Amino acid sequence: MNWLVIMAGGSGERFWPMSRRTKPKQLQPIVGKDSMIQQTVARLRPLFDPARIVVVTNRVQAPQVRRQLPGVKHVLAEPVGRNTAPCIGWAAEVIRRRDPGAVMAVVPADSWIGDVDRYRQVVRDALALAAEREVLITIGIKPTSPQTGYGYVRLGKRLNQRFFQAREFVEKPDMATARRYVKSGEYRWNAGMFVWSAATITAAFQQHQPAMAAQLAQIKDARSLARIYPKLEKISVDYAIMEPADNVVVANGDFPWDDVGDWPAIERHFAKDAAGNVARGAFMGVDAQGCVVVSDAGHFVGLIGVTDLVVVHTADATLVCRKQDAQRVKELVVKLGAEPRFAQLL
Amino acid sequence: MNWLVIMAGGSGERFWPMSRRTKPKQLQPIVGKDSMIQQTVARLRPLFDPARIVVVTNRVQAPQVRRQLPGVKHVLAEPVGRNTAPCIGWAAEVIRRRDPGAVMAVVPADSWIGDVDRYRQVVRDALALAAEREVLITIGIKPTSPQTGYGYVRLGKRLNQRFFQAREFVEKPDMATARRYVKSGEYRWNAGMFVWSAATITAAFQQHQPAMAAQLAQIKDARSLARIYPKLEKISVDYAIMEPADNVVVANGDFPWDDVGDWPAIERHFAKDAAGNVARGAFMGVDAQGCVVVSDAGHFVGLIGVTDLVVVHTADATLVCRKQDAQRVKELVVKLGAEPRFAQLL
Repeated sequence: MNWLVIMAGGSGERFWPMSRRTKPKQLQPIVGKDSMIQQTVARLRPLFDPARIVVVTNRVQAPQVRRQLPGVKHVLAEPVGRNTAPCIGWAAEVIRRRDPGAVMAVVPADSWIGDVDRYRQVVRDALALAAEREVLITIGIKPTSPQTGYGYVRLGKRLNQRFFQAREFVEKPDMATARRYVKSGEYRWNAGMFVWSAATITAAFQQHQPAMAAQLAQIKDARSLARIYPKLEKISVDYAIMEPADNVVVANGDFPWDDVGDWPAIERHFAKDAAGNVARGAFMGVDAQGCVVVSDAGHFVGLIGVTDLVVVHTADATLVCRKQDAQRVKELVVKLGAEPRFAQLL
Repeated sequence: MNWLVIMAGGSGERFWPMSRRTKPKQLQPIVGKDSMIQQTVARLRPLFDPARIVVVTNRVQAPQVRRQLPGVKHVLAEPVGRNTAPCIGWAAEVIRRRDPGAVMAVVPADSWIGDVDRYRQVVRDALALAAEREVLITIGIKPTSPQTGYGYVRLGKRLNQRFFQAREFVEKPDMATARRYVKSGEYRWNAGMFVWSAATITAAFQQHQPAMAAQLAQIKDARSLARIYPKLEKISVDYAIMEPADNVVVANGDFPWDDVGDWPAIERHFAKDAAGNVARGAFMGVDAQGCVVVSDAGHFVGLIGVTDLVVVHTADATLVCRKQDAQRVKELVVKLGAEPRFAQLL
């Protein structure tokens, strides 16, 4: 049977103040009306029975995940975050024990996808391939611009219309390298979306991460989870499995995709006014240009004379930062965390 | 008897979004804990019986003025704003009819004063002089910096320790001229604070504004007020009376004074943090410098990477503007006024 694993353990700090510890980015409607995770489920619902959807999250987010996804029964709560390899390995264990012949798709909870029909077809084809062959499939997104914030996968031999062998995974490049990657046509964005059979990924863990595979096999109940999980190595599935593996296949992800990584990213998903401002909520500008304004509950934001700012208003906190500093929202969140009087803002 | 007239008809648009039509700047705690008009009354209470305090405001603000100043019985509501000459002329009529021997001080509702004891002494001395002599006294503030936003009065002959004859009133100067004014020691800021007897100001209106004086004399009740007031010339008391008059005396205002004309002005009245930010309310900055933050009701404001911004948060609206654009808040208010959906924000 086909299973879906949704990775939803992120803290979403770059989307503060909308994103909070108990309700981070993936549980917020950053783009669209539903939360990112609700959109992720809706997008793939035609392919997966809700009884075979597994969400891996953490303890503080689990209640809100259950509330937002009432049809989803398998909500796994990590006792601590350990990056994507333990998360995926644990989900694979859980699924394999229930359904040894399972085929799994693994996706992040918080991406945006532009052409859902195309996306579903790519996942469908990958599920079919993974059911037939012992391959680890990564969905590689055809780059539309030289992004320096993404990892890339280099294509090897073309297998057919839809798939390539993977040649190598490469780190986030500098701009010149990114431009070369895009121009060459040989590279795809590594979007953290995978498809494989439970048997194949289990074998891959046993081969490339034997210690972790043994630890994961011992997780049987809440007690063993709490004992073992914190001891697992904090490592990404890319480093732990995909890079050393020689049976990696790249599915050609020829659909618009965006990881919506920070506030300025939402510019790509909403109409701009004549001055290049993007506003969600009641907004007016006087000589304001290129700003991103997000405001909830009818609260009005007025900007005068400012350029390239992010302004986000929520009930108890407002953020104003330069677009170029959008990644530094994390620094503000760390600073807030150091002051007990601001604890309720995290 | 000594009477106090408080001019409180301003719309306070430059302090939007805190200042609103029905509760503008003078009715808000822009600096300090009480509203500006409450501070104005408290400052002069030792000199004036509340029964002899007259507040001139407009119809939309009058209810809030009465609420904030429960001891003050005389709240005059202008049917329409007509600048300071009609406002003062009307108040003088009202006072003279009750107390023909009255001496009046006239002050704006929304100034800040740094040394209240000194200020009271200046007003006390002016009241004494005005009771003795037929002079129009303006309290001229000793300039501490070359302000281009204020009008100035040039000093003539020194009369005694406290008073000078006025030589001339001059308009808002350019920076070079303002510097020269300050350096010379011959100029005082025109702060819109006046002291005279009711008889002397009435005579001055009859001499310099005979038409207006005749119109004001006809205002007897609400009906005549509504009929006549809108026909009065819109003109300042400086133009209408002080400039043509030859019996003007300048009281030496040697106390700190500030008209608190826009949001950046509040910087002068609150402590700055290490990065030069002034914050009222919950605030944290990451590389934010020279900003002015005003936030109510515990709402948090976080700034990252921004310089010299004004950020003001209220329950239903937030303003973000460059300090240098603080006067342009009026433009935003005009734009808001043109959109019915934003009417509740005015």
